[in-house]
Amino acid sequence: MKITELNEEECIELLAHAHLGRLACTQGLQPYVTPFYFVYDNHSLYSFSTVGQKIQWMRVNPLVSVQTDQIVNQEQWQSVVAFGRYEELPDTPNWAVERETAAALFQRNAVWWEPGIAKTTLGTGERSMLPVVFRIHLSQITGRRGDR
Amino acid sequence: MKITELNEEECIELLAHAHLGRLACTQGLQPYVTPFYFVYDNHSLYSFSTVGQKIQWMRVNPLVSVQTDQIVNQEQWQSVVAFGRYEELPDTPNWAVERETAAALFQRNAVWWEPGIAKTTLGTGERSMLPVVFRIHLSQITGRRGDR
Repeated sequence: MKITELNEEECIELLAHAHLGRLACTQGLQPYVTPFYFVYDNHSLYSFSTVGQKIQWMRVNPLVSVQTDQIVNQEQWQSVVAFGRYEELPDTPNWAVERETAAALFQRNAVWWEPGIAKTTLGTGERSMLPVVFRIHLSQITGRRGDR
Repeated sequence: MKITELNEEECIELLAHAHLGRLACTQGLQPYVTPFYFVYDNHSLYSFSTVGQKIQWMRVNPLVSVQTDQIVNQEQWQSVVAFGRYEELPDTPNWAVERETAAALFQRNAVWWEPGIAKTTLGTGERSMLPVVFRIHLSQITGRRGDR
């Protein structure tokens, strides 16, 4: 197997097509990695989540790392690893534009979205039911390809 | 979709069958997540890697997080997230037993191993060519299942 670097364009193409990734955050010395779904747009990943350990940790330390890949088999794969910064998009007038961007992206990529959750997230229902909408501003992005 | 917790036995069964996971480590405030292959044995994950950012970071801060999953589709999946501690198994007499354990585990699960790499790792070739063999001692393990 030959392993080569992906260029930035190839990394972004992978991020734009792969909606499932892994998100790592850190509290003190302890990292924490979980799967998450995202939509790529303009050097950011948009996502949402109910408030739990991940959101709580990222609110304190916004530095994160994200990984995603396309795996055909053991010897044919592409993987991207990025560093980034967590930014919450709260349901307030200041963030209305960003939330609309997020809503449009979620809707356009709704294949993996549960309609009920999307409605809960993006509608105007009870606040306590609303998952947190956030985006990851990507800084360093690197990728590799394995091939025969 | 209904999401339920996996019990410890179910988490370990998933770890024992899934050899591809994601490993997160931390330097300062910055987490870093990469894909890695592992073999589970007795509350530890055995793996190896060439020396790079991941190994350098874990040598300084051994606290890590590991995630693995089995995904049938959007609505049917299992995911395990664990905390753990990195331990290097150097090629010295003190670690001979642990390295033999690792070698046996790698061999038994060789489907995803490149013969050449396995030989390089476990043989007695040039030291500079040898990837680092390590294990992750798992502490907290939690898992979830999504189902219709």
